[in-house]
Amino acid sequence: MTTPAYYVTTSGNSTALPVGVTWDDATWILTNSFIIFTMQTGFGMLEAGAVSLKNEVNIMVKNAVDVIYGGLSYWTFGYAFSFGEDSGSNPFIGIGYFFVDSSDPNELGILFATFVFQLSFATTATTIASGMMAERTKLFSYSLFSFFNTLVYCVPAHWVWGSNGFLSELGVIDIAGSGAVHLLGAVSGLVATILLKPRIGRYDNIDDEPPIGNGTNSILGMFILWWGWLSFNCGSTFGISGGKWKLAAKAAATTLIAAMGGGFAGCTYSQIRTKGKLQIGDLVNSVLGALVGITAGCAIVKPWEALIIGIIAGMLTLGTIILLDKMKIDDPVGGFGVHGVGGVWGMLAVGLFAENDTLENMTKGQSGLFRGGGFRLLGVQLLACVCIAAWSALSTLAILLPLKYTLGIRLSKDHERLGSDYVEHGIDHHQPTGMMFIGNRVASEPAVYARRGSRVSNADSKKGSDWNIRRSNKIAEANKNIKNDDEDYISTIGDENMTKVPIDHPSAVVSSPRQRSAAKELAKRLSIKEPEPSISSIFGSDAELIPGGVDNKT
Amino acid sequence: MTTPAYYVTTSGNSTALPVGVTWDDATWILTNSFIIFTMQTGFGMLEAGAVSLKNEVNIMVKNAVDVIYGGLSYWTFGYAFSFGEDSGSNPFIGIGYFFVDSSDPNELGILFATFVFQLSFATTATTIASGMMAERTKLFSYSLFSFFNTLVYCVPAHWVWGSNGFLSELGVIDIAGSGAVHLLGAVSGLVATILLKPRIGRYDNIDDEPPIGNGTNSILGMFILWWGWLSFNCGSTFGISGGKWKLAAKAAATTLIAAMGGGFAGCTYSQIRTKGKLQIGDLVNSVLGALVGITAGCAIVKPWEALIIGIIAGMLTLGTIILLDKMKIDDPVGGFGVHGVGGVWGMLAVGLFAENDTLENMTKGQSGLFRGGGFRLLGVQLLACVCIAAWSALSTLAILLPLKYTLGIRLSKDHERLGSDYVEHGIDHHQPTGMMFIGNRVASEPAVYARRGSRVSNADSKKGSDWNIRRSNKIAEANKNIKNDDEDYISTIGDENMTKVPIDHPSAVVSSPRQRSAAKELAKRLSIKEPEPSISSIFGSDAELIPGGVDNKT
Amino acid sequence: MTTPAYYVTTSGNSTALPVGVTWDDATWILTNSFIIFTMQTGFGMLEAGAVSLKNEVNIMVKNAVDVIYGGLSYWTFGYAFSFGEDSGSNPFIGIGYFFVDSSDPNELGILFATFVFQLSFATTATTIASGMMAERTKLFSYSLFSFFNTLVYCVPAHWVWGSNGFLSELGVIDIAGSGAVHLLGAVSGLVATILLKPRIGRYDNIDDEPPIGNGTNSILGMFILWWGWLSFNCGSTFGISGGKWKLAAKAAATTLIAAMGGGFAGCTYSQIRTKGKLQIGDLVNSVLGALVGITAGCAIVKPWEALIIGIIAGMLTLGTIILLDKMKIDDPVGGFGVHGVGGVWGMLAVGLFAENDTLENMTKGQSGLFRGGGFRLLGVQLLACVCIAAWSALSTLAILLPLKYTLGIRLSKDHERLGSDYVEHGIDHHQPTGMMFIGNRVASEPAVYARRGSRVSNADSKKGSDWNIRRSNKIAEANKNIKNDDEDYISTIGDENMTKVPIDHPSAVVSSPRQRSAAKELAKRLSIKEPEPSISSIFGSDAELIPGGVDNKT
Repeated sequence: MTTPAYYVTTSGNSTALPVGVTWDDATWILTNSFIIFTMQTGFGMLEAGAVSLKNEVNIMVKNAVDVIYGGLSYWTFGYAFSFGEDSGSNPFIGIGYFFVDSSDPNELGILFATFVFQLSFATTATTIASGMMAERTKLFSYSLFSFFNTLVYCVPAHWVWGSNGFLSELGVIDIAGSGAVHLLGAVSGLVATILLKPRIGRYDNIDDEPPIGNGTNSILGMFILWWGWLSFNCGSTFGISGGKWKLAAKAAATTLIAAMGGGFAGCTYSQIRTKGKLQIGDLVNSVLGALVGITAGCAIVKPWEALIIGIIAGMLTLGTIILLDKMKIDDPVGGFGVHGVGGVWGMLAVGLFAENDTLENMTKGQSGLFRGGGFRLLGVQLLACVCIAAWSALSTLAILLPLKYTLGIRLSKDHERLGSDYVEHGIDHHQPTGMMFIGNRVASEPAVYARRGSRVSNADSKKGSDWNIRRSNKIAEANKNIKNDDEDYISTIGDENMTKVPIDHPSAVVSSPRQRSAAKELAKRLSIKEPEPSISSIFGSDAELIPGGVDNKT
Repeated sequence: MTTPAYYVTTSGNSTALPVGVTWDDATWILTNSFIIFTMQTGFGMLEAGAVSLKNEVNIMVKNAVDVIYGGLSYWTFGYAFSFGEDSGSNPFIGIGYFFVDSSDPNELGILFATFVFQLSFATTATTIASGMMAERTKLFSYSLFSFFNTLVYCVPAHWVWGSNGFLSELGVIDIAGSGAVHLLGAVSGLVATILLKPRIGRYDNIDDEPPIGNGTNSILGMFILWWGWLSFNCGSTFGISGGKWKLAAKAAATTLIAAMGGGFAGCTYSQIRTKGKLQIGDLVNSVLGALVGITAGCAIVKPWEALIIGIIAGMLTLGTIILLDKMKIDDPVGGFGVHGVGGVWGMLAVGLFAENDTLENMTKGQSGLFRGGGFRLLGVQLLACVCIAAWSALSTLAILLPLKYTLGIRLSKDHERLGSDYVEHGIDHHQPTGMMFIGNRVASEPAVYARRGSRVSNADSKKGSDWNIRRSNKIAEANKNIKNDDEDYISTIGDENMTKVPIDHPSAVVSSPRQRSAAKELAKRLSIKEPEPSISSIFGSDAELIPGGVDNKT
Repeated sequence: MTTPAYYVTTSGNSTALPVGVTWDDATWILTNSFIIFTMQTGFGMLEAGAVSLKNEVNIMVKNAVDVIYGGLSYWTFGYAFSFGEDSGSNPFIGIGYFFVDSSDPNELGILFATFVFQLSFATTATTIASGMMAERTKLFSYSLFSFFNTLVYCVPAHWVWGSNGFLSELGVIDIAGSGAVHLLGAVSGLVATILLKPRIGRYDNIDDEPPIGNGTNSILGMFILWWGWLSFNCGSTFGISGGKWKLAAKAAATTLIAAMGGGFAGCTYSQIRTKGKLQIGDLVNSVLGALVGITAGCAIVKPWEALIIGIIAGMLTLGTIILLDKMKIDDPVGGFGVHGVGGVWGMLAVGLFAENDTLENMTKGQSGLFRGGGFRLLGVQLLACVCIAAWSALSTLAILLPLKYTLGIRLSKDHERLGSDYVEHGIDHHQPTGMMFIGNRVASEPAVYARRGSRVSNADSKKGSDWNIRRSNKIAEANKNIKNDDEDYISTIGDENMTKVPIDHPSAVVSSPRQRSAAKELAKRLSIKEPEPSISSIFGSDAELIPGGVDNKT
């Protein structure tokens, strides 16, 4: 069976089972895999924090879809194309191990351990694109994209990590995937975001970057990713025996130090740029960009080099985000800055700083430019970036273009405005919560079911909410008829001295039996059945929503 | 000492220390225990996301209570009844190791490692019930239930995993507890939810399932559980040495693939059922149901069988949830579908698909029906389900019935309406937050203390909130007297051209010293001392809260 | 190289590489380090849940700053002062390993593994202070404090864990840092919180403790910390080989049992104190206090002693929090109770309960008072507490006093009222979210960008929000001129029968082209440029914000 190139021992092209894989190595590989999967949680929270509330749950779903659909295809054919060694496998693509399985006691341990470890990498690559496509991509189309996106990932993984991959043979060094995971995912996402076009209002009415949706969740996601990254990078020694534990320890140190460098650069730059206001996006993206930057060379650069790599990665990341914004390419989470440019820099940094590894020969005998290795390694690293980016762009187009012209990949304008959570999941973020007072009126009851972040609203249950949106015009009409009819009003909290509220108001919940029957009567009058709502069907054909209100530009 | 049956070597009934437990095995057992405990976090967030905002914190507390009270009893007697081997222990129950401790250097390592690992399982079983009892169970009664619920768990654990348990002797195979953890917890929860009766309004006014409370938190919980499950299943090899690491690697792969299958089935089914709207509950429950389904056989079925097991588990889970709903059994988190039916299916799937394990003899020489093993194993697995379910139901009744008729287990109707967070923890979800404008008035100040999800409200501190609810009628009265008295109004943002707001309004916070003293005077006038509030004491005796507002049904 | 004293073998003063550190030990050390870093996530969520919404994101940022700035200084000089062994190192301070690095294959593995492990401890110590300084500390000053706070930590770490530290030589036992991490961090935080003075309104208008900001996030943080603590304590065996795995297993059991004891005591006490209302802070702090209490002696006390230690720690923690409150020392998260008093108790408990460890000689041949060891060990433990507390207080002063009198450490009153999230990060928690109805009017549109917890507001983008706060008075003036000019009003949802709303109202978003141009015209009229807003510049010079509204005291 094939294991990633970075595992391969000095013989370099062994097709036999790795010699000396022990249960110690298995412990390392499996434990780190388990931790790497937590990065899926991290990406989910990071993206949920970056998008608007109305799309928050939807982006979490898409992160789950990446594991479900992307995982199925990785098991079906992804691992096969990356690490298969049957006849037909060649420097471009592997063949073998379709529907990964084995009953051979000499093989099954390492095969399943490798599969699980590689799967955690594969789902990461797809997830990078999910954030860049946020807030406007149809879920069903995204699910299909997620399934086929394995194709984007598995081929370059073979080039870089397959035992006979052509980039591997050339001597490319990409320990944990700055190129093969992050650059790849970012280019895929960039192509997708260009095809999708910017979100409504992103460059129309607003001349400033949008605020982060939920900063706490974003930083929660950053933290989860940060610690998961330790396993991502250190687990990529693919074992702990021999000298591998020493490289893993070094990788942990450089990973942390690079992130400190990136975060320091990002915080400093952000406070200068905004005159003292540290932008959450700047913090998060500079840390993550630095982590991407150290990923390729984590075990083979020195700590102070890691610091420099991290600082530069952080700056490049933030600069790229600003540049894309100026180019009106709408990347909602800054994914291309973090993973794309961070990834290229990580690959090139290996070509500059790599120190020949005498412990496990991870460098295949090579050194970087600054270590006396000349330009050869730098050239190979650059070539790898070009090949990976080209493949990623073309294969993503090959998946998305057919989708675009059949099912469509973008939500309708009305649906985008209403938000994915509502149109794809029936989630109304405005259900009433508990007891609430405005002035001395009960403005909201302690609802039976409610959710965080909700507000005064008569959209008070999933079913009710569909209906409420449809009925708005009817209510207006009905109210015209009832406005002088006291019986149709329900007084709250004592009948005498309260302000009257119309019966359709959610505050009308504290009622005597008489009041309840009046309420039911009105509800019956308003009863309507209408098709799927759209903005125009609700508000009339010349209605138009001005994003963010009327006063964004003065 | 006794270790779980699945650890016992070929001799099968050794009472000596396991031969060959090394520190490698200890690393595996302990590290996985640490990760399994994160599942408590996962259950907490999953359940917090599923319930209404007004019960969100309370359900987190109950998850903590499961570890605190359930952990104490597991240390006191739970481990003893499961794995004790002193005289008196028999196929039904173990005796020994009460108040788990040891000073014997040959014993203490494995004893404490086993205890910690098993504890992480025990708390999981109780936590399953917590979600099914959500939104209406008194915290104090729940705490007692949680303590004694260890009794429900520890006896079947002896049957299945104790060295001389009767199901173990019969040859039952339940590697990580589809039956002994999940089915057990689900039956316990089912009995509890039937005893508790449905939540107010659940089947009275609403003919549709309630919306999920906070989808982001639910999916966060699902993710945490998903990755924790890898340790749950793979850690159940109870070591990494010999062939155990190979089985652990296989278990990781089958666990992931089953979850993909379940998630795929759930997403597809949900989108068909709701015409394109993927319900969050369907996604979450189908993934978790599949994880439960693969738990019993994780290391001894093939990947494609895991896929089938997962797909069927996902479908059974969603079908069960709909069925229970039709039967008007109120299971707020779908726990019986996920853990109960998923658990039975997991046990039976072993009887169908199990492949004789030649590496570590986890199958005790048996094979499933489809592997030529005949009906015997299937029968034993079914018998185990029946025994576990019967014990769980009876012992849960033995705990809850005395509680029901003494302390009571269900919140009063008023308290349930007000929400557990308020009545059990004094949490008001409506404290004001920062600066807020309605039109051109300042409607809310940047409060000193505030919380997420809060809104305009004059319930602005814990103490204040108790008081505010009580005073509503008094305010009304007081306002009658002051309504023509300009001095009692406070103008906001400049005095001339603003709408006047009554002094008790939260917007009345931008004030000059003169205004402050007027405010204090009114506050004094309103000063009241009243007993614990109830809905009727606030709103009068014929007041009634209509769940979810008046307009749910038209 | 130097490793912590608790690693040192029986020879006690070896300066050579630890004999017999294997990759098994490295697996243990590194895996536990990775998990310990998740405690940073836990502290972040715990603190974000404890503070007001308006400071929630800022406290997450400060937790990130602890790793970024604190990590940089720990790499630069912290590790050197703790574990350096070059000439010049002495019982008070270590010298060596500045800018931690090594290329020596015999050294680099253990050096980097130790560095990463110790770094996870160092950042914890600083983070403890972050919570105690919450809601009023300037971010930039905090960043500098965080960088230099390493000085506070690294010197006592040398005393306690350095191979020739003077407390270590005296025989102090502090396995995972009750004293050297928790007490140290808590005293540092206490000095800081006294220097900072209480938050506005904390002891002015409110005679009760403030409500917890977000209970769900707090308990999420507690859970993450709880499971991370297992690695914190068990990882401190600093390996798994020999007898270390047995001590690690014991430490896991005692850590869990102590937390159960603390949680049980805290829940019981809280329900008595508040007549049945379990305070979230009491639960969280009693569990965490117990975890701090068991940290010093985790591997060398018995389970039932751990239970007692936990119960006492929980009670001491809650008592301390009440005491500090009475002394009007404002510790927003109860950090001194948890880490300070819990830490002292943990140190003294070792002096009482420690059992001579024959497996790895962690007790250096000593026993506690109750184990026949006499008062000597208790005395040494007490001395250590005094030395650590004194150093922490003095060195914290040495850092903060210069900051206080140059940059300043406390936010201005206006900024504190507006909240750190707004003034330090430009975060407006009141952006509009999706479609919302009040009565039959559309009160809010489905905004392009929105965030959780937001509400009706015309502060609808980051830029807009700056501007909106400035313009309030201008709007009032403008409205005076337009109030009879129908053209300047925009009707919502149909023109005839809707209540008119002023054009600056966020509901004014459903508009015909004619209405849009009217809106633009008004927006132009209101266009203003003003300096950084302050409360007084907005509301006039005699304006004052009454914390929490007018009615906190009756």
